[in-house]
Amino acid sequence: MAHAEVPPARKLVWLDCDPGHDDAVALILAGCSPAIELLGVSTVAGNQTVEKVTDNALRVLAAAGLQHIDVVAGAARPLLRAASLLCPEIHGESGLDGPLGGPVLPAPPHAAVPGKAPIVMFERISAAYQRGGGTQRVHLVAVAALTNVALLLALYPEVIEMVEITIMGGCLGVGNTGPVQEFNIQTDPEAARLVFESGAPLTMVPLEVTHTALVSTSVVQRVRTHTPSPFLGLMVDMLTFFADTYSTVFAFADPPLHDPCAVAYVIAPELFKSKLLRVDVETASPFSTGQTVVDSWGQSGAPKNCTVCMEMDVPRFWDLVMAAMHAADRVSPLNSGSGSAAGGAGGS
Amino acid sequence: MAHAEVPPARKLVWLDCDPGHDDAVALILAGCSPAIELLGVSTVAGNQTVEKVTDNALRVLAAAGLQHIDVVAGAARPLLRAASLLCPEIHGESGLDGPLGGPVLPAPPHAAVPGKAPIVMFERISAAYQRGGGTQRVHLVAVAALTNVALLLALYPEVIEMVEITIMGGCLGVGNTGPVQEFNIQTDPEAARLVFESGAPLTMVPLEVTHTALVSTSVVQRVRTHTPSPFLGLMVDMLTFFADTYSTVFAFADPPLHDPCAVAYVIAPELFKSKLLRVDVETASPFSTGQTVVDSWGQSGAPKNCTVCMEMDVPRFWDLVMAAMHAADRVSPLNSGSGSAAGGAGGS
Amino acid sequence: MAHAEVPPARKLVWLDCDPGHDDAVALILAGCSPAIELLGVSTVAGNQTVEKVTDNALRVLAAAGLQHIDVVAGAARPLLRAASLLCPEIHGESGLDGPLGGPVLPAPPHAAVPGKAPIVMFERISAAYQRGGGTQRVHLVAVAALTNVALLLALYPEVIEMVEITIMGGCLGVGNTGPVQEFNIQTDPEAARLVFESGAPLTMVPLEVTHTALVSTSVVQRVRTHTPSPFLGLMVDMLTFFADTYSTVFAFADPPLHDPCAVAYVIAPELFKSKLLRVDVETASPFSTGQTVVDSWGQSGAPKNCTVCMEMDVPRFWDLVMAAMHAADRVSPLNSGSGSAAGGAGGS
Amino acid sequence: MAHAEVPPARKLVWLDCDPGHDDAVALILAGCSPAIELLGVSTVAGNQTVEKVTDNALRVLAAAGLQHIDVVAGAARPLLRAASLLCPEIHGESGLDGPLGGPVLPAPPHAAVPGKAPIVMFERISAAYQRGGGTQRVHLVAVAALTNVALLLALYPEVIEMVEITIMGGCLGVGNTGPVQEFNIQTDPEAARLVFESGAPLTMVPLEVTHTALVSTSVVQRVRTHTPSPFLGLMVDMLTFFADTYSTVFAFADPPLHDPCAVAYVIAPELFKSKLLRVDVETASPFSTGQTVVDSWGQSGAPKNCTVCMEMDVPRFWDLVMAAMHAADRVSPLNSGSGSAAGGAGGS
Repeated sequence: MAHAEVPPARKLVWLDCDPGHDDAVALILAGCSPAIELLGVSTVAGNQTVEKVTDNALRVLAAAGLQHIDVVAGAARPLLRAASLLCPEIHGESGLDGPLGGPVLPAPPHAAVPGKAPIVMFERISAAYQRGGGTQRVHLVAVAALTNVALLLALYPEVIEMVEITIMGGCLGVGNTGPVQEFNIQTDPEAARLVFESGAPLTMVPLEVTHTALVSTSVVQRVRTHTPSPFLGLMVDMLTFFADTYSTVFAFADPPLHDPCAVAYVIAPELFKSKLLRVDVETASPFSTGQTVVDSWGQSGAPKNCTVCMEMDVPRFWDLVMAAMHAADRVSPLNSGSGSAAGGAGGS
Repeated sequence: MAHAEVPPARKLVWLDCDPGHDDAVALILAGCSPAIELLGVSTVAGNQTVEKVTDNALRVLAAAGLQHIDVVAGAARPLLRAASLLCPEIHGESGLDGPLGGPVLPAPPHAAVPGKAPIVMFERISAAYQRGGGTQRVHLVAVAALTNVALLLALYPEVIEMVEITIMGGCLGVGNTGPVQEFNIQTDPEAARLVFESGAPLTMVPLEVTHTALVSTSVVQRVRTHTPSPFLGLMVDMLTFFADTYSTVFAFADPPLHDPCAVAYVIAPELFKSKLLRVDVETASPFSTGQTVVDSWGQSGAPKNCTVCMEMDVPRFWDLVMAAMHAADRVSPLNSGSGSAAGGAGGS
Repeated sequence: MAHAEVPPARKLVWLDCDPGHDDAVALILAGCSPAIELLGVSTVAGNQTVEKVTDNALRVLAAAGLQHIDVVAGAARPLLRAASLLCPEIHGESGLDGPLGGPVLPAPPHAAVPGKAPIVMFERISAAYQRGGGTQRVHLVAVAALTNVALLLALYPEVIEMVEITIMGGCLGVGNTGPVQEFNIQTDPEAARLVFESGAPLTMVPLEVTHTALVSTSVVQRVRTHTPSPFLGLMVDMLTFFADTYSTVFAFADPPLHDPCAVAYVIAPELFKSKLLRVDVETASPFSTGQTVVDSWGQSGAPKNCTVCMEMDVPRFWDLVMAAMHAADRVSPLNSGSGSAAGGAGGS
Repeated sequence: MAHAEVPPARKLVWLDCDPGHDDAVALILAGCSPAIELLGVSTVAGNQTVEKVTDNALRVLAAAGLQHIDVVAGAARPLLRAASLLCPEIHGESGLDGPLGGPVLPAPPHAAVPGKAPIVMFERISAAYQRGGGTQRVHLVAVAALTNVALLLALYPEVIEMVEITIMGGCLGVGNTGPVQEFNIQTDPEAARLVFESGAPLTMVPLEVTHTALVSTSVVQRVRTHTPSPFLGLMVDMLTFFADTYSTVFAFADPPLHDPCAVAYVIAPELFKSKLLRVDVETASPFSTGQTVVDSWGQSGAPKNCTVCMEMDVPRFWDLVMAAMHAADRVSPLNSGSGSAAGGAGGS
């Protein structure tokens, strides 16, 4: 071979999440996409308690052959709100239930790393940033309440120069857990406000985009493939549970797979149409606290602070997700016979 | 024929408006539709000052052969806000400018009736209601800031049993004069809140519907007809001016004719898809005061207080508007040669 | 006598109230002070429902020989709040209970005049203002929720040039029905905001002043005098009931007689120390809606809009009250033997 | 004497401050009182930038012979507000100016310890708490904006079990930097709200108390003593500057020495009258954000969360302050001839 081709540098990503069914797919996409070097994972109360979502993150990583990715537990509650909203009606009591009830994935063989999420995030992110000579910003992808991210920015304002933040959250019109509010922002509105006003480069993937990432029957068929493995079988179980709860709660024919959209934006921003706009987070209203107020017409004159995704190339999004799912399938210990205890067996 | 067929009772309508180009068409639709008995017209500061919009209401009625309809001037400013927003960038300095600058319609030969709008509204509405033996509610159609309507309801709570209110206003998603705010509601948010919380039967025709009533070239062609009259010529001028400003300010290819949609709902509610929902008006937020927060998922548990129109049969809407325009054309004094001084000539 | 001395012109006063024990004394002070010509009385829901407080106003006027003063009923509820707060724990079920339970005063022989309070207020105030050639502003004394006054100002902005408004309401520090809220303002905060922002000349007699007008035992002794009449006996009963409830609810040794302080300000402003300051009414806070935010240091830069009374000459205040009480006693029909059915007997 | 008497355990104190003239005295009181073991000092933007107040803390400690006390720099800005308020009109450009302009105290010979304040605070507080076997809570005395304290509590919720918090801040009535707002709370209202809602034992020393700690001429005389030293001379300079600015800005005859009151509460709570009440921090109002809404009548029913000091034994307070000043004077290196460069000479 005459000259080795230099592969494009992988994007450095830290993922903050609260698995959660769609978070699980986001973890797999971030961990198994060849375009990403996943630096680590932090968790935060949201879809379930921080204990449960931390456990779920470990389960997903283990199932996908990603035990080497460190997980650190973050905030147990929002900055200023007494308690998290939590979403058992969508994600079940474990936060990642399967159709038989209880956790869809086996218990993890490993534990979270000790420490506080914002501190560990800063250590890992700044180390990766320094390693790259300060030329390549780290992608902080947050697909949950922004409590950890807000504490990171408040405690270490110097990190603002080291990161690009991409969040799954917010909406321009109708919300999900409130009339005009999306769940992640509504869970910790003051944390979101801190992040939106921080000055860090910020991209928002709102409900209007994620509601186009619908897990239709044909999507499930693509996961299953012709020779279904234990791993992919559990993935199908996971998506089936999620489809059922979304149908019950919101009367959606197919459930939207929110969180992987934000990871997809980091991998391939060219799949998205977006606009740089002013976005403010409402924190004072009795009706709309947690709304992302998007100044579409630029009437406020306030500085533009957020790239708002408006549309996504949905077929190419599913291509990215399928490739990651099948890459995980090739290395999943669940397929080796040893670790493949199916849904429910791993329940606590 | 043995016995004459009884015509269906015409609907009793009071129209509150701030003409305004789209208000002008709403006036013509309410005054010339055979389905409506127009009891009177009140005006309120909004698209322009109350003096100007009162003058414009008189001009439109005179041009359309409707001088017998009384006009009464209402509030010069919102309940709690120091000054109205006003919209010269859309409706011109007169509030009803034409392409040559200045008012598109000739000066009116008559004046507004004396008195305060809420008091006159109560007298006329309660008289009409009593005349019908208390069996037929009067339609109060409000296509401007809700200041007059709020004062009416506050001063005469007994009128709540006598009316059905239909408003052009509000939105579920992106606003027009604010990120998530529609102009009429944003102009007097506290008045709107009073109306929405009053307990009166209420229907809202939001931006999502009115933005489908676009004055395309083919719509203008239908106004013009084959033998254009002075009256219809001025109507085309009026719509052309409106199309230009909407194009400049909002980059709309064709301008939305908001206000007649609310009148059309009273004439033919079967043209609309709608849902009974909880709607609250935001009055506390620094970002979204004037937003109609529509509880699409029924999560608040608060009593449903508003029929929210979601879709309109647009072709049949234009049929109603064209029929009224052409009915007005048949009686317009502007076509008689005597009173037909064209746009600008009637300027004050 | 060589030449008749020209008496000083009496001040023209309209009194808006919600009797209420302290309102009763305010009525007597306004009706029997030689310095005041009382133009009429309006009522508003507050201490009790508007029906009850209207009835109480009629009872007080009849008992004090003031049947010639017209009473008109006003708003049954606040502008934007679903229902009034009401204060049965202080004023009893009738709003003017005596120590035996039930109304302290006999049923009135006359009824309220028909019409809506804001309309009648405008007619009487503008007539009195015109009568004086437009040189003497009418004193609008409001010692209850400001709903009627707000509607008057919104409906008739021209009245702003005809009146001076003096209110009993608000506080600089600790409130009574809320942590930092006084009852009258808290009952209808948006009405208060409208009044404070109206531009009308405005004086506020806050809790800090009215809490110095304490009905001590020696005050009660002065009411009683040496030869107690039926009228004064009922006055003592009224004050005794009020002392008991204030002791129970707020642990006050002696109850504060709020409302007459505002009337006293109109009679003799020289009894008060005051400052012209910016005062805003909070309407957005979950904790302090209804607070009068007094900008003591002038830091806001907003225009000063309210003369805030800071101190009162308490002995001279009681002199005014006693003089009015004893003037009423001289003409009270309750002392004639015919109309003197005592407390409870007059209950409806 | 047979056995040595066991001295009472000294109270463990961490002091968070923004020197600031009154902070300087608080530092001396906390560092030199025999009742306190001062664990360390953190700083936060407030009276001046965090760089300046950190420098000032080091200057004060050095001047008072307290170089062994570690200082760590904290937050440069509030959690959600773009910038701190800062108070140059009271504390001068350096934050601790003297009458000649520029810093009153010489430059410090030592630097702050590295690290983030909330992290260092947790390490030192938890170590001290463990050292005492978990039986003695550490007193966290905060006499500045509560940004550091809020981040500590959010990042380490377990510290809530280890501390008692005493703050100088808030007011029941008239504020200082706002109509109803005290400076420390107004500087970072969301941080204050987090602290007040945290569940940690909390005592508040409000303006109503600190405005009784007035630095009168006789107080200054007591500082001076009969044989004035360089250290005490600079203390007098410091107090004189402070008296001048308070006289200019607020027209106070004598300036209030706010911050040492909170330290005095920890030393001798028996000097204070106080009540356990519900206190909420307003964060939504356009007029009163940063107000401590104190529910004096217990009407809200919300859990009581704060011991509110109402009165202080002022003579005994000054005794504590004087004892600490004179103890510092006995060890101050400024009195040794070597380090005694006076005001201005030490300016950076």
